[in-house]
Amino acid sequence: MTKPCIICVAITGSLPKKENNPAVPITVSEQVESTQEAFEAGATICHAHVRNDDETPSSDPEKFARLKEGLEKHCPGMIVQFSTGGRSGAGQARGGMLPLAPDMASLSVGSNNFPTRVYENPPDLVDWLASEMLTHGVKPEIEAFDLSHIFQAAKMAEAGKLAGTPYVQFVMGVKNAMPADREVFEFYIHTVKRLFGDDAPWCAAGIGANQYLINQWSVELGGHART
Amino acid sequence: MTKPCIICVAITGSLPKKENNPAVPITVSEQVESTQEAFEAGATICHAHVRNDDETPSSDPEKFARLKEGLEKHCPGMIVQFSTGGRSGAGQARGGMLPLAPDMASLSVGSNNFPTRVYENPPDLVDWLASEMLTHGVKPEIEAFDLSHIFQAAKMAEAGKLAGTPYVQFVMGVKNAMPADREVFEFYIHTVKRLFGDDAPWCAAGIGANQYLINQWSVELGGHART
Ligand SMILES: [Zn+2]
Ligand SMILES: [Zn+2]
Ligand SMILES: [Zn+2]
Ligand SMILES: [Zn+2]
Repeated sequence: MTKPCIICVAITGSLPKKENNPAVPITVSEQVESTQEAFEAGATICHAHVRNDDETPSSDPEKFARLKEGLEKHCPGMIVQFSTGGRSGAGQARGGMLPLAPDMASLSVGSNNFPTRVYENPPDLVDWLASEMLTHGVKPEIEAFDLSHIFQAAKMAEAGKLAGTPYVQFVMGVKNAMPADREVFEFYIHTVKRLFGDDAPWCAAGIGANQYLINQWSVELGGHART
Repeated sequence: MTKPCIICVAITGSLPKKENNPAVPITVSEQVESTQEAFEAGATICHAHVRNDDETPSSDPEKFARLKEGLEKHCPGMIVQFSTGGRSGAGQARGGMLPLAPDMASLSVGSNNFPTRVYENPPDLVDWLASEMLTHGVKPEIEAFDLSHIFQAAKMAEAGKLAGTPYVQFVMGVKNAMPADREVFEFYIHTVKRLFGDDAPWCAAGIGANQYLINQWSVELGGHART
């Protein structure tokens, strides 16, 4: 491999519960412990959600603050990425932790369907989240659930709503959104290079059963992998 | 050209008003008159919305019934396609005219952003609209505002939720959705042929300033054009 491989560890996501998998870290200290293991095994970025005590997704800035503190202490130098995804809250509550100035935060720039509902990212909320990231020096990871989301990132960058070269993550395998498809995957990469230059970084995440497959494609084609 | 060119005329859309363009046909009789002109000029399909008296979009089945009657009388043999788009109503009201059994109806199978809001097509509503079309023998025109919508049509066809080969329309140039992009346009065509066979029909619509450009691409690459 010609580039160093960035491994991004998503320690929890917002959905799996202990009843599904007793190893899922739920509390902040469980999350820090589990990230430390991944960090010591070579992971570079920690993509983080937080949970309420009843295991439901949360966007409580106080919980994010404690997680960030724990990660800085136990995983020094690791890139901390907070989720602003719609499963953890609604409206501007999704970005309430951005003043904590994590290194990165996820940013969805379009809307699409999820298994049972619409994943709603209305244009004014997208713009507000992006402006909060600009204000607090947070690098967005653009979550591309569909092809137009890459073009939307380009348009936002041109308009000065994103700083620097957009960093795009392709998300595949969510039911009712984009399936894991090799030709689309390659067209995504081609589009990123066309819009952002040949050296533009990208990463990819496969949901559920597609996780391993998408990681293989990413490593093979020069992207960063998320576990 | 090797195939006959199907010209699909969208007589009104749901947004332009008489104050924007005094020639916009609003009442059912204005719509029939305007469609008849296009029919006599060679248009094959009429894509129709209806309006309330104050020019706002409507999904009133009674208005659609009068429109269908007028079109059958004045444009005999023309294919009538009703819009079930989200600008004209909410939830199942969007499909309240399907029991009138028009030849075709538009069907959005995913969600995406529009200029100022989310265009919401939740999975259960999509499935209900598709089942109403099956029940009443209405051929859907799949509105692909993004790439994943073509894959979603394939999945629905496999699951028996759509009859026959899906007929896809690429929609480009809506702000915050897919822009008019030639490489994407060609990848859309490639994807339709890969998923539905080399002979699968497709058409394309460019919104606003992109209308003429998209028509040119369609005619050049073997699709049906919408005006
Ligand atoms: Zn990543
Ligand atoms: Zn996440
Ligand atoms: Zn058409
Ligand atoms: Zn329409």
